[in-house]
Amino acid sequence: MQEKLERKLASGSLNFESFFSEKALQMKASEIRELLKLVETSDVISLAGGLPAPETFPVDIIKKIAEEVLTEHADKALQYGTTKGFTPLRLALARWMEKRYDIPMSKVEVMMVAGSQQALDLIGRVFINPGDVVIVEGPTYLAALNAFKYYEPEFVSIPMDHDGMRMDILEEKLEELKRAGKRVKFVYTVSTFQNPMGVTMSLERRKHLIELAKEYDFLIVEDNPYSELRYSGKPVPPIKHFDDEGRVLYLGTFSKILAPGFRLGWIAAHPHFIRKIEIAKQAVDLCANTLGQVIAWKYVEGGYLDEHIPKIIEFYRPRRDAMLEALEEYMPEGVEWTKPDGGMFIWVTLPEGIDTKLMMEKAVAKGVAYVPGEAFFAHRDVKNTMRLNFTYVPEEKIREGVRRLAETIKEELKRA
Amino acid sequence: MQEKLERKLASGSLNFESFFSEKALQMKASEIRELLKLVETSDVISLAGGLPAPETFPVDIIKKIAEEVLTEHADKALQYGTTKGFTPLRLALARWMEKRYDIPMSKVEVMMVAGSQQALDLIGRVFINPGDVVIVEGPTYLAALNAFKYYEPEFVSIPMDHDGMRMDILEEKLEELKRAGKRVKFVYTVSTFQNPMGVTMSLERRKHLIELAKEYDFLIVEDNPYSELRYSGKPVPPIKHFDDEGRVLYLGTFSKILAPGFRLGWIAAHPHFIRKIEIAKQAVDLCANTLGQVIAWKYVEGGYLDEHIPKIIEFYRPRRDAMLEALEEYMPEGVEWTKPDGGMFIWVTLPEGIDTKLMMEKAVAKGVAYVPGEAFFAHRDVKNTMRLNFTYVPEEKIREGVRRLAETIKEELKRA
Repeated sequence: MQEKLERKLASGSLNFESFFSEKALQMKASEIRELLKLVETSDVISLAGGLPAPETFPVDIIKKIAEEVLTEHADKALQYGTTKGFTPLRLALARWMEKRYDIPMSKVEVMMVAGSQQALDLIGRVFINPGDVVIVEGPTYLAALNAFKYYEPEFVSIPMDHDGMRMDILEEKLEELKRAGKRVKFVYTVSTFQNPMGVTMSLERRKHLIELAKEYDFLIVEDNPYSELRYSGKPVPPIKHFDDEGRVLYLGTFSKILAPGFRLGWIAAHPHFIRKIEIAKQAVDLCANTLGQVIAWKYVEGGYLDEHIPKIIEFYRPRRDAMLEALEEYMPEGVEWTKPDGGMFIWVTLPEGIDTKLMMEKAVAKGVAYVPGEAFFAHRDVKNTMRLNFTYVPEEKIREGVRRLAETIKEELKRA
Repeated sequence: MQEKLERKLASGSLNFESFFSEKALQMKASEIRELLKLVETSDVISLAGGLPAPETFPVDIIKKIAEEVLTEHADKALQYGTTKGFTPLRLALARWMEKRYDIPMSKVEVMMVAGSQQALDLIGRVFINPGDVVIVEGPTYLAALNAFKYYEPEFVSIPMDHDGMRMDILEEKLEELKRAGKRVKFVYTVSTFQNPMGVTMSLERRKHLIELAKEYDFLIVEDNPYSELRYSGKPVPPIKHFDDEGRVLYLGTFSKILAPGFRLGWIAAHPHFIRKIEIAKQAVDLCANTLGQVIAWKYVEGGYLDEHIPKIIEFYRPRRDAMLEALEEYMPEGVEWTKPDGGMFIWVTLPEGIDTKLMMEKAVAKGVAYVPGEAFFAHRDVKNTMRLNFTYVPEEKIREGVRRLAETIKEELKRA
């Protein structure tokens, strides 16, 4: 297949490159995606992916609802929808967020998008001028960097610890940026069970962040795909809960609480922002897929969502525990990792001097894969970290994968 | 609802506008969409929409396939997919295009997108530098103008007649642009049963367009959502059929041959172009909805698509006939219209001096709505035209709608 494609590529007499826009010429395929393609075809234990386990998909519920929707609502479910999304679903989500997070419905409007990835792109489109400062966590969700990058912001990266983004450092940076006359448009945070670290921003820091947003007049983009996947500890309200001015744009998704195949996410934000994002979305794809939206509506409205979340939690908790135990058992001294209360990822930090990207080949040779941490940093300036996923692979494989990884690291440490 | 929203908008203490990007500040809601919202709540006969009739949706087939897919392929259908799309569907579409249009599979790669609207946006992103010339039909599909506009091209609009884009005028324009040292990136055409005119580019002109593309070194974006909806006359091969170099990017969609609610379209193009568009799509939404893709795969592969197309045709043909007959019967002298062999639209031209946008209010007062033609022209410089849709409204209503419209026009002519 690859070979055939290469032949096709070579056969052209056209100068293909000459047609691309300047920005398109800068676009590069994600190296990690390319790397993972290789891994997925071998018998390597991959702790690299970011996929939910298909065992957590509520297939029977979806089947039942799909049958119902196609019997009773086919006209609507198969037709074009409005750009903002299917109104009953938007209302159901607003009610659900009010109940679950105490975010008053009267303060937000909900708009449906094609997965929260699309929300990131639309937010880039609507808010970022070239040169505007976008503040991100260091490390942060790499596809957010990828989405924002097109709009040419200046990224400023704030270090993380076990309580999330370091507010003291953020404050210093904000002061510095202010003195330099730079405009900060927003802070982007995966506030709970962060991707890639698994850590959660503390209650105190959430409040602090809102205060800083007011003081320095910026917005907060709160990306919250994981907070329902809590295996231990006490829930913390979303930052949006503390927002009394409309500074927080909240992103939710069905990918982890229903299934990613629906490509459905939502933005909950002030109507003034939603109105503009709606206009932007109209130009890029008219509306999110309607069939998926009508199914998702029944899923939320019928109480299936609330019923199903505990089952996902029960399925993932042993996997998280297995990974934490294996790390404890196998990892040599000098290796550190986060202990997430939820989500999908654990973040591992090796002694300085070890480059996890260079180490990858050796790990794969030993039969295990991970994501080198470098790509999660806006400036790619940290080399000794990696992200491990514990949701996709069963417990025994997690143990064996971590064992192989520890072995690789030990050899690497010896060499260093 | 509207009132409540206005209150919400007014209540903010934030300076919302100050956060928007320069480009977002330029974004305007489509006036037509706003207009149609009003119409849809009244008992006006709307010939304005662009919706397929829900009676043409193959609901029973979709139900059967959905059941099957969720029983046999749930793991895949509910999981994240690759950015290029579900491979069996991509292959099935490539085979289908080879069989149906004689476009050799070996020459194209098929990539799935979130409706062909997304293809337009991605093509803008990948090909247009600010100031690049994009040549469009005058009139053209207005959402294409909307998608491309973000990327700041210079639009050049080529007049149309009953055989599509005027190649003689195109050639003159190309020569002129060449002398002015301007770069033409691509010609955008809805080649068959055009939106909004309903006309089809003749065979001869298709070949001529390819020759001009070679001579002046530009690409062709062929948007082909309607060609399967042929009610009379002989099929013409897509322009892509004549493309031996990879200059044509072909856009297909399931919206008119399955249902719009899936939000599924495809691009068939040279692998070199597909590779770049794939990278662009990765940043904007990762992948198209997988459940829809797996259902669409069974729909094509199982032969349902080929079985279903004749049924859609039989459903729409009487509606087109009814509109043509009513126009013949009711319209006063001086009014002209196209006689499409297929598609969804008829284009009406009134005597010069009548502004259909200004006339709209009177038409609505008489109980009929249409889309004023102005917005379909890149430079909004033609005022005396309108688009009528004949797929959504039943025959009797079409007759009555055209009668009311003719009455409005007669009064307007008397006044003029």
